[in-house]
Amino acid sequence: MAYYVGVDIGGTNIKTGVVDSSGNILGESSVPTGADRHQEVVLLDILQTVKDSIAAAKVDEREIKAVGVGSPGMIDYEKGIVIRNFNLNWENFYIADLMSEALKVPVRLANDADAAALGEVVAGSAKGAKSAMIITLGTGVGSGYVINEKIFRGCEWGHMVIVHNGRKCTCGRNGCFEAYCSATGLINSTKQAINEHPDGILASIAKEEGVVSGHTIFDAADKGDEISAKVIDEYISALACGLVNLINGLQPEVVSIGGGIGKQGERLLVPLREKVYAEVFKGIPHPKIVICTLGYKAGLIGAAMSVRDI
Amino acid sequence: MAYYVGVDIGGTNIKTGVVDSSGNILGESSVPTGADRHQEVVLLDILQTVKDSIAAAKVDEREIKAVGVGSPGMIDYEKGIVIRNFNLNWENFYIADLMSEALKVPVRLANDADAAALGEVVAGSAKGAKSAMIITLGTGVGSGYVINEKIFRGCEWGHMVIVHNGRKCTCGRNGCFEAYCSATGLINSTKQAINEHPDGILASIAKEEGVVSGHTIFDAADKGDEISAKVIDEYISALACGLVNLINGLQPEVVSIGGGIGKQGERLLVPLREKVYAEVFKGIPHPKIVICTLGYKAGLIGAAMSVRDI
Repeated sequence: MAYYVGVDIGGTNIKTGVVDSSGNILGESSVPTGADRHQEVVLLDILQTVKDSIAAAKVDEREIKAVGVGSPGMIDYEKGIVIRNFNLNWENFYIADLMSEALKVPVRLANDADAAALGEVVAGSAKGAKSAMIITLGTGVGSGYVINEKIFRGCEWGHMVIVHNGRKCTCGRNGCFEAYCSATGLINSTKQAINEHPDGILASIAKEEGVVSGHTIFDAADKGDEISAKVIDEYISALACGLVNLINGLQPEVVSIGGGIGKQGERLLVPLREKVYAEVFKGIPHPKIVICTLGYKAGLIGAAMSVRDI
Repeated sequence: MAYYVGVDIGGTNIKTGVVDSSGNILGESSVPTGADRHQEVVLLDILQTVKDSIAAAKVDEREIKAVGVGSPGMIDYEKGIVIRNFNLNWENFYIADLMSEALKVPVRLANDADAAALGEVVAGSAKGAKSAMIITLGTGVGSGYVINEKIFRGCEWGHMVIVHNGRKCTCGRNGCFEAYCSATGLINSTKQAINEHPDGILASIAKEEGVVSGHTIFDAADKGDEISAKVIDEYISALACGLVNLINGLQPEVVSIGGGIGKQGERLLVPLREKVYAEVFKGIPHPKIVICTLGYKAGLIGAAMSVRDI
């Protein structure tokens, strides 16, 4: 049998897993990232978790064909270098070569969002899709596009402007998809509604919860707050706007929604599908719109699957 | 030698040409489309122009390996059917099979904008590019995306919303790229500026010219009209907005601008490049931005090149 190791580099933890060629995880391990340490020290921990996951999987080390590493930051894919990652404080990290030398198998880098998207296509919500767009609604809006189980590299659809001269985005542009549709964007809209209606149901729920999160507005809408229902409707309209743009341009068979906001499930999907299908360009097939199912495992599985062709 | 015939189906004329595998046209022919006739009658004319172009190219008919047909409208690529084309009044037109039977060579359909994009990549403004986005600024905004000299099928980036809840578009959405950046969009902005300033330089130039066209606003700006300069600046900002969206998402090596507005050349490109490069997401390489060079020949050449793999 051929097995692959997937490594998912996160800001908090680094997770590794041994995966078979169908995307099943046979053994896992993880270690705190410890981003305050030198990158070479982190490397030692990564190598150890790879070995731990192989031990957990109870497979012969010689059956590991390759290791795929999903990492955030700017990546040189050809050379296997993380050029820069501000959160982890990594710079010119020749991680693929270093790991390959230590583990004696080929190692290749992928973008972490791309890897997660591939995971969902091989073994999750978009299983079997010829093409799929995975959109993660978290701190930012992540995007991964997969065609024929291959990653379409490095797309940044979160920084597609949907409101020309609109809300300021962290990327320097104004009106990005991310500025409206990330959890952060929804939280900003929620805070704005609280400021405008300081005596409303939403404001009192936010006070009760102690912090405004991505689900505060949904909690308030549950209690019958019309202002919250309107904010949610506007949020879903903006989300539909961005998704239809991508459907018109790329015609994915499946669109999978992940991240914190994805936890709203059908409550998000039912109105979203209605808005999306009403606007898709005539003649372009309507994609399935679903919620990601693999959670953190998507990154692991996808990173491993990204080296299946080695 | 292997030669290919390209057929470009236009609203006014149908053009055909014999093309070698490097994209050189060896002989051409054309015939008025006559869209008021039955599609089967138009077919006879298409077949005749194919033969005429082979005669003009002075090549042996047996050296023609395949025919590529670039057509507008809804297409079933697998079956080679134009399902519907409102302008030509075509419906369920089994054009590929019918032509193939008559000509005794394989015939395949492509979208006309896709074919033109491939032409520009094989032999025009984006020659040698690994990936290129061709944007046509005419009646609408056409888009064609080519990777490794292969068409990425049927993208409709003209109907990407850049102004959520903005200008009404012919597609039913509001705020599409096309609604702002097509020649039609610019003409609408020009007319609006004329209405707002009926005694201005722009209004008097429009009156002189007798009709508001895509270059009226440029003519007025040439005469020092500040209002026109402002409209042009807003137009180019919207165009940059849409292009940066595509660059962030697809990372094309080259962006080629065609259509009527493309005739403004460097006058358009200099401010456009400045705006685009200022906004591209950090880490994404800046593409070359150029004007299409092949004119009507792009469609011919590209249609022929789309069957090189047969």
